[in-house]
Amino acid sequence: MKIGIIGTGGIATNAHIPHYIAAGADVVAVMNRTRERGEAVARQFGIERVYDTVADMLANEQLDAVSVCTPNALHKDHVIQALDAGCHVLCEKPPAISEREADEMLQAAKRAGRTLNYGFHFRHRTDTQLLKRLIDSNELGHIYAATALALRRRGIPGWGVFTDKELQGGGALLDIGVHMLDLALYLMDYPKPVDVVGHVGQYLGTRPGVGLMGDWDADNFSVEDTARAMVTFENGASLFLDASFMANIGPKDTMNVELRGTAGGASLFPLTIHTEEHGALFDKTPAHLTLQDPYATQIRSFLEACRHEPSYEQAEQAVLLHQIIDRIYSQG
Amino acid sequence: MKIGIIGTGGIATNAHIPHYIAAGADVVAVMNRTRERGEAVARQFGIERVYDTVADMLANEQLDAVSVCTPNALHKDHVIQALDAGCHVLCEKPPAISEREADEMLQAAKRAGRTLNYGFHFRHRTDTQLLKRLIDSNELGHIYAATALALRRRGIPGWGVFTDKELQGGGALLDIGVHMLDLALYLMDYPKPVDVVGHVGQYLGTRPGVGLMGDWDADNFSVEDTARAMVTFENGASLFLDASFMANIGPKDTMNVELRGTAGGASLFPLTIHTEEHGALFDKTPAHLTLQDPYATQIRSFLEACRHEPSYEQAEQAVLLHQIIDRIYSQG
Amino acid sequence: MKIGIIGTGGIATNAHIPHYIAAGADVVAVMNRTRERGEAVARQFGIERVYDTVADMLANEQLDAVSVCTPNALHKDHVIQALDAGCHVLCEKPPAISEREADEMLQAAKRAGRTLNYGFHFRHRTDTQLLKRLIDSNELGHIYAATALALRRRGIPGWGVFTDKELQGGGALLDIGVHMLDLALYLMDYPKPVDVVGHVGQYLGTRPGVGLMGDWDADNFSVEDTARAMVTFENGASLFLDASFMANIGPKDTMNVELRGTAGGASLFPLTIHTEEHGALFDKTPAHLTLQDPYATQIRSFLEACRHEPSYEQAEQAVLLHQIIDRIYSQG
Amino acid sequence: MKIGIIGTGGIATNAHIPHYIAAGADVVAVMNRTRERGEAVARQFGIERVYDTVADMLANEQLDAVSVCTPNALHKDHVIQALDAGCHVLCEKPPAISEREADEMLQAAKRAGRTLNYGFHFRHRTDTQLLKRLIDSNELGHIYAATALALRRRGIPGWGVFTDKELQGGGALLDIGVHMLDLALYLMDYPKPVDVVGHVGQYLGTRPGVGLMGDWDADNFSVEDTARAMVTFENGASLFLDASFMANIGPKDTMNVELRGTAGGASLFPLTIHTEEHGALFDKTPAHLTLQDPYATQIRSFLEACRHEPSYEQAEQAVLLHQIIDRIYSQG
Amino acid sequence: MKIGIIGTGGIATNAHIPHYIAAGADVVAVMNRTRERGEAVARQFGIERVYDTVADMLANEQLDAVSVCTPNALHKDHVIQALDAGCHVLCEKPPAISEREADEMLQAAKRAGRTLNYGFHFRHRTDTQLLKRLIDSNELGHIYAATALALRRRGIPGWGVFTDKELQGGGALLDIGVHMLDLALYLMDYPKPVDVVGHVGQYLGTRPGVGLMGDWDADNFSVEDTARAMVTFENGASLFLDASFMANIGPKDTMNVELRGTAGGASLFPLTIHTEEHGALFDKTPAHLTLQDPYATQIRSFLEACRHEPSYEQAEQAVLLHQIIDRIYSQG
Amino acid sequence: MKIGIIGTGGIATNAHIPHYIAAGADVVAVMNRTRERGEAVARQFGIERVYDTVADMLANEQLDAVSVCTPNALHKDHVIQALDAGCHVLCEKPPAISEREADEMLQAAKRAGRTLNYGFHFRHRTDTQLLKRLIDSNELGHIYAATALALRRRGIPGWGVFTDKELQGGGALLDIGVHMLDLALYLMDYPKPVDVVGHVGQYLGTRPGVGLMGDWDADNFSVEDTARAMVTFENGASLFLDASFMANIGPKDTMNVELRGTAGGASLFPLTIHTEEHGALFDKTPAHLTLQDPYATQIRSFLEACRHEPSYEQAEQAVLLHQIIDRIYSQG
Repeated sequence: MKIGIIGTGGIATNAHIPHYIAAGADVVAVMNRTRERGEAVARQFGIERVYDTVADMLANEQLDAVSVCTPNALHKDHVIQALDAGCHVLCEKPPAISEREADEMLQAAKRAGRTLNYGFHFRHRTDTQLLKRLIDSNELGHIYAATALALRRRGIPGWGVFTDKELQGGGALLDIGVHMLDLALYLMDYPKPVDVVGHVGQYLGTRPGVGLMGDWDADNFSVEDTARAMVTFENGASLFLDASFMANIGPKDTMNVELRGTAGGASLFPLTIHTEEHGALFDKTPAHLTLQDPYATQIRSFLEACRHEPSYEQAEQAVLLHQIIDRIYSQG
Repeated sequence: MKIGIIGTGGIATNAHIPHYIAAGADVVAVMNRTRERGEAVARQFGIERVYDTVADMLANEQLDAVSVCTPNALHKDHVIQALDAGCHVLCEKPPAISEREADEMLQAAKRAGRTLNYGFHFRHRTDTQLLKRLIDSNELGHIYAATALALRRRGIPGWGVFTDKELQGGGALLDIGVHMLDLALYLMDYPKPVDVVGHVGQYLGTRPGVGLMGDWDADNFSVEDTARAMVTFENGASLFLDASFMANIGPKDTMNVELRGTAGGASLFPLTIHTEEHGALFDKTPAHLTLQDPYATQIRSFLEACRHEPSYEQAEQAVLLHQIIDRIYSQG
Repeated sequence: MKIGIIGTGGIATNAHIPHYIAAGADVVAVMNRTRERGEAVARQFGIERVYDTVADMLANEQLDAVSVCTPNALHKDHVIQALDAGCHVLCEKPPAISEREADEMLQAAKRAGRTLNYGFHFRHRTDTQLLKRLIDSNELGHIYAATALALRRRGIPGWGVFTDKELQGGGALLDIGVHMLDLALYLMDYPKPVDVVGHVGQYLGTRPGVGLMGDWDADNFSVEDTARAMVTFENGASLFLDASFMANIGPKDTMNVELRGTAGGASLFPLTIHTEEHGALFDKTPAHLTLQDPYATQIRSFLEACRHEPSYEQAEQAVLLHQIIDRIYSQG
Repeated sequence: MKIGIIGTGGIATNAHIPHYIAAGADVVAVMNRTRERGEAVARQFGIERVYDTVADMLANEQLDAVSVCTPNALHKDHVIQALDAGCHVLCEKPPAISEREADEMLQAAKRAGRTLNYGFHFRHRTDTQLLKRLIDSNELGHIYAATALALRRRGIPGWGVFTDKELQGGGALLDIGVHMLDLALYLMDYPKPVDVVGHVGQYLGTRPGVGLMGDWDADNFSVEDTARAMVTFENGASLFLDASFMANIGPKDTMNVELRGTAGGASLFPLTIHTEEHGALFDKTPAHLTLQDPYATQIRSFLEACRHEPSYEQAEQAVLLHQIIDRIYSQG
Repeated sequence: MKIGIIGTGGIATNAHIPHYIAAGADVVAVMNRTRERGEAVARQFGIERVYDTVADMLANEQLDAVSVCTPNALHKDHVIQALDAGCHVLCEKPPAISEREADEMLQAAKRAGRTLNYGFHFRHRTDTQLLKRLIDSNELGHIYAATALALRRRGIPGWGVFTDKELQGGGALLDIGVHMLDLALYLMDYPKPVDVVGHVGQYLGTRPGVGLMGDWDADNFSVEDTARAMVTFENGASLFLDASFMANIGPKDTMNVELRGTAGGASLFPLTIHTEEHGALFDKTPAHLTLQDPYATQIRSFLEACRHEPSYEQAEQAVLLHQIIDRIYSQG
Repeated sequence: MKIGIIGTGGIATNAHIPHYIAAGADVVAVMNRTRERGEAVARQFGIERVYDTVADMLANEQLDAVSVCTPNALHKDHVIQALDAGCHVLCEKPPAISEREADEMLQAAKRAGRTLNYGFHFRHRTDTQLLKRLIDSNELGHIYAATALALRRRGIPGWGVFTDKELQGGGALLDIGVHMLDLALYLMDYPKPVDVVGHVGQYLGTRPGVGLMGDWDADNFSVEDTARAMVTFENGASLFLDASFMANIGPKDTMNVELRGTAGGASLFPLTIHTEEHGALFDKTPAHLTLQDPYATQIRSFLEACRHEPSYEQAEQAVLLHQIIDRIYSQG
């Protein structure tokens, strides 16, 4: 299979290219606005051709699939161009920066009859997949309460465009909250949202402080450092979302999804299951669980999808996801 | 000081009467609908007179203060009778079963010029009081995010009227959620609520199961076992409330309040503080903290209040508290 | 129900009499060779009549059931006398001191049409009962490997007749090993033994040393301090038994049964379950498990059995149990 | 010293060749049935000559010693050929696949006047050697009880010939149980066995399941996954052996030897000693114990032995070891 | 044996009188300046006669032995009076308030030919006695380095005369440091001191603060809260002493003695031993060590001493102990 | 900036040269008595010129600064030569081998108007710097008690000249004790010493034993293995110093400084702070503290100092430090 790479940041070079190669796919072209960067990456991985526009790459190559790894605000255009050119697309998260964009991308996929997947790598973790199997076997029963946590103490990246609202589209919610929100919804089978109350704010990001991921630019900090929301769903369930780039919280950062169902409950990282059986309460933990690289699994899973009928499931979920996010941002 | 006791359940005999006596107050009368129960309690504590109506007790005694320990649905009437008779009142939690009731009680207190306090004993814990002093000294800065948790795995009491909606007025929210909700609001200085989204439901209580506090009557389970809500406030803060009598959660039950402020954060049970000082992040825990009986402290604090100008602060807070609770229940 | 007690040592006064009383049974008579001891116990528990022979007690009382709490070597005679007198019998462990005795006792029970139970209180623990339910639901599949451990570092009782071969019938094997052996067999549904290889010896008991349960009389130490055996069964399973009164082992003493089955494994104290489900390995532990007094449960269970058709199940199991024990002792 | 290597699997390339080189010995030739594999290994380590039969290698080289790293079923022939050619031999474990073979190998060594050692590398661990010194100083007294455990939860290797009865000669017993059995016997000074009761079976290996060391071929699984035995010895001691490739056991796999002696006890991995001294019980653990590579020590120790009078001690022990194993297998 | 008690504070009623009675001695008289207090204690323990001066008691009773439990500054007079009256004496710690006093007490004992022991109950702990046996068996070799720690975070007693220099004679050094200092010297066989450098001070005691043992009177705080010293001895050893009533130290208070010898080292609370044996380093901890009440052991040991030749060993050690203490105080 | 390196042992190649290079300084010359060693190092780091005397190097190069990494006994001469040649100097610890030498070095620095720093890298650790900031902000108040611990169980280096009194100048005190002593004094702002009592000795080093850092030469062990001292200061503070190369201590080695002040206390490795605030005691630990390489920080800090007015602070502190050390050694 012939693969093209759009965008060559760290996520492309760490999480996409090497895993395509390991999976036996042919990465034949790479595109970067700055040709030097593109050429460096091409040299590193032995990729033959380099382009500095998406249009050129798509026009000159007969690609089966592309990975889109550009800044969030560019996802929509690059994805649609690629779909229109007949490629299957794996687009990094977040899918887009608004529900409207996500919807346009979905329509493009359907129009093109191509699969559009998103890079929510937490879905592909071994522990997540195990929990998913448990849920599909009804071990939790009806899941009626969820909590999605993405809390860092001082975790604003000091590099990249993470604090630039324009390119990034958002902060703690769109960069890390989105992972846990998608993960919870995925495990709950993406129920339809009813009410959303939410709140985003800048509390610590606009003043200087201890930076654990490098120093950030407090003067040009234009995104939210904190986002909190509650969502209720048509199926009677509810979800809390709590995300922060910076917060005065306990000694360890938290990325987690907690679920409570009528038959059992689960906490995902690390995975523990809580049930009632044989007239007693039990806690259950996986043993000897070997965590595999979720990026490798994600790429293999995308390549597999490319070989079958196109799937619009993830593209449809992205529309719901961005609907919730839009409603949170709209409440400020 | 002459004290009368209205209602003689466990909370009266454990948390009120002995502490009045220890504090040197004169418990002169006790009232219970069932005279035998009243007489047994009177004998146990050497209380002189027993009544079977509140009216009789108030008419025949010159009481300075009363404790109201009857079922939730009776609080309002008993409290107002006592205030009207010129007594200061310490009423068990929850204050009432609706905002309207709480407001009538507040008006009665003001009319009578008497102090009306509520039995939120978690406020009187040594660790809570220490955190309150830290907050008052601005160690947390502006508190913009709170989480109030009252989660039991299988904690529906098998005794009393806890699952009887009519007498109790509610379930997990009104019995245990109310404690952590009040505690969070108290520590945040009772900000004014703006939006409330909430959800209550019966997921596990209506079917039989493992009862850790005795077996409950699943057939007549008429209250919610689960309540979840998000509240936003005028001062820009937000709060999550998560309460359950039963839920498939981890090995330990949780009663806790977590706060995040611009200068520091705190988790209350056990108390830990998280700050940034001298260019570094610190976690801070109290050492050698001797936890005193919060009921003793509560009674001493109420007696102290009786000796001063009447205070309507707690009665006013109760109105806000029930406003939030009403709005949660109204969303079903 | 009218109950008589034969023998008044600690096991009678701690584990039998108070629990009969708590369960509402009538303990009307007590027998002890030394009348003074009998009278002291009668006074302590308000028991009306005292005897100094079993024959007298059985002749003069209309007993429904008796507990036999005399030294091991007397069990057989006392049990058979009681059965012959028409009583149901709960006899302390070990059932007897040989297979032949156990068999005579079983025959006497059948002849009399009365239930004969044995005081293996570990069977009545809450955790054991939970594991039994799991096994009965086939959560372990076919149990093919068992290990029964009763290992004390320096646990020779310094009181009583525990080191007197004549009265006690044996040492580590018959006093504590028998508990874990019975427990393993009970959980495995008492399979029929095929091969038994075993070994008993005196390694530490005959020389003075640190006594954690009082000092023992090393000069008159006539029982084994160590017993080890392997048993294979008709159903293809095998069992290790390792018992010692004294051994140079790790910091904690061990009483445990471990089971390995085709579908799952278990370790009993504390209870953990090991399974493979959904393509992953899991460890499972009970949460909030309230351990109840096994002696109370044992007495209630015996009284319940007295109200139904006579059961010879435990008496039959005792024959198998002593068959194994005899074969171990016979190998020296 | 001139060394030849027979067989070039992982054990040869990891545990033999590099340590010969590090110890200054001359690895001059390597033999593999498949010449390409032999040549690859020769290139990797700079070995000069490659052969595809043992006979050729022995005929053309003047070797002082050889390592035999071929499948178990070939050990006997290769070892005897090498001894007959005047070489000292280090043969990987297990020594052979029957007592008869082990005895032939011993006789060949004696005939040739050459040392025959076996690759029981656990003997050469730093902690094992320390325990051996303690035992030799009589810190444990007479060792009368031993337990040898080699229990894996899902540890059937997915590579090699481990599940092929014909080439491998056996499963859990011959592959991993043999290590702990030899280790226990070595520490006990190889006492003479009297009774052996044993049992081997296929419980989990013949059906598919979670493979932690790769997936195995359940359809062609021809070895035992479980072996259990009890051995009694002429010196009054007894030993339990419990080995499994797969079993539903606790979260951690176990490789261990436990010993109980009249003066002290020991558990080997990790090493702890239990004694009674000065009228008190003590637990003793080594501190700052630096574990060295046991393979390196084993090779150095073999080279050292080659420089002295031939030693038949290990070859004699191997006969006893296989006598026990044969008796276990014979009981099925 | 006829016993008299001088002084009736908590130490007398908890640590002396009940243990004399338990050991079978006859406590026939009790003396307290305040007769009512004496009579209350006599009633509590069934003691026949009460006195309000030491002279009266000694004149009117035929006592074999007395316990002196009066404030430190009165020890000398009471002890000498009792010795002169022919009594053996057990005097609470510290022995006196100066070397001169301790020496007068020693001379009085020798003159009277009576045993004079001191209430250093830490010597009588089970763990201390075990370490003493180890040291006497030379397991530590020559002890050349000792550290004695008596550090409390906020441990100034809020009751009694502990902060009154006149009655108490000193603070942290004389009240708690003296325990660990005596213990270290006792374990080292009371070597003769050469150099003493020391320092005592008031750092926290004279200002109000958190009192964990009740609030103390900061205005009348006349003793040292901190004492630190180094002592060198004729046998080449050295000792650090670090004592504080209050200090800003870690979460746990510390009472401990650490010893380093040429053959082994020890830390006492909890007891761990560190040695080098068989070419490896070992840590050794006692297992199953049952701690007995050191006060009971102390009384039994004193009664035993009264039955033998008089012993002046403790009285002589007290002189050395106070010599060191005097030299520390003299350096301010 | 042009840098020369005097001495090329491990400390030079690990802790000096690579960090100069990383900081952008020009290491232009290296000196070693043994030219081959110098050349090897020059090749490794691409240094242009090699010398075999200090005089030659200083004469031929226009150096801005030098690092002195020669054995302790040579520090003085090499430092003074370099200062006289107009270089700033960073000299490895200990500064010298006597107060007199340290003073000559200070005078030389002043005479030359050049900065003289010493390689006490523990000062440059991230945790030390954080504690220093806390102390400078008066969080500990007046520091009146310090303990400096440098205790190894078997930590005599088996390489280099560490046990050679002549070249090294001393043992445990001068090699490792000096680090913690300097660190304590640095944090206390180098108060002036008044009394010093000390003791050094050879207890374990002169006999063979377990060597954790290689085997040492017990026959030529000419330094102290143990040094202990107490120092009192003009400001009323006191300090314990306890250093050993070998001692029979607990399982972990200890390098630490503990401080007690009137407002707070601290233990440095790992850093914890103990304070009293808001009427409660608190323990405080840094979170997410990223420890940076202290050698890198030290070099950057020295280079920074070279760019400013010369500083004699460290050179003056070294005189005080050696005054204390001299007084300890003089007491033998």
